[in-house]
Amino acid sequence: MRFRHHVFVCENRRPADDPRGSCACKGSEAIRRALKEELNRRGLKGQVRANAAGCLDACAYGPSIVVYPEGIWYGHVTVEDVPELVERHLVGGEPVARLMVPELNRRSG
Amino acid sequence: MRFRHHVFVCENRRPADDPRGSCACKGSEAIRRALKEELNRRGLKGQVRANAAGCLDACAYGPSIVVYPEGIWYGHVTVEDVPELVERHLVGGEPVARLMVPELNRRSG
Repeated sequence: MRFRHHVFVCENRRPADDPRGSCACKGSEAIRRALKEELNRRGLKGQVRANAAGCLDACAYGPSIVVYPEGIWYGHVTVEDVPELVERHLVGGEPVARLMVPELNRRSG
Repeated sequence: MRFRHHVFVCENRRPADDPRGSCACKGSEAIRRALKEELNRRGLKGQVRANAAGCLDACAYGPSIVVYPEGIWYGHVTVEDVPELVERHLVGGEPVARLMVPELNRRSG
């Protein structure tokens, strides 16, 4: 693997009055910035990448994030969750169960 | 895994005169459109997702694509490559070796 963890943060933005909502309107850009800063601070640049993504088709759970190669999905993430995500999952290798959305972490058909 | 394959196509766009180039300037948006159409045509919607991504840090090899959970990186992809990528890799499960960039498919340090 090129990256130990490749984190995709949905930055899709819809008009503010769109009933589906969108992750960017819910603050996902700030979450990615905080992720990048925390990864840089810990010297993980080049090993763990915080990538912007278009719509991850998880709008109802936004801001939504998926981490590969393990395929762990997080929803309703806030900037305040970033240190724990980095410390536990991206450094320690253990997903943060309280942020995992059951509906997104089921096997597809 | 929520998706059998989750395909991220870099759609980063830089000004046309930027010496680094960018995947969108090299036609990546049309590649993603072709991927989505081919996946829909084969009834794979919901099982294989063709996602837009921000910069994948593989500008020199653009248009660049990464497929998870297997972590296979492709570079210099064209619209004409899409049917083979879908048929061989996303349906058949066998990466298309001729499109894999060696520098991107090495393990990180």
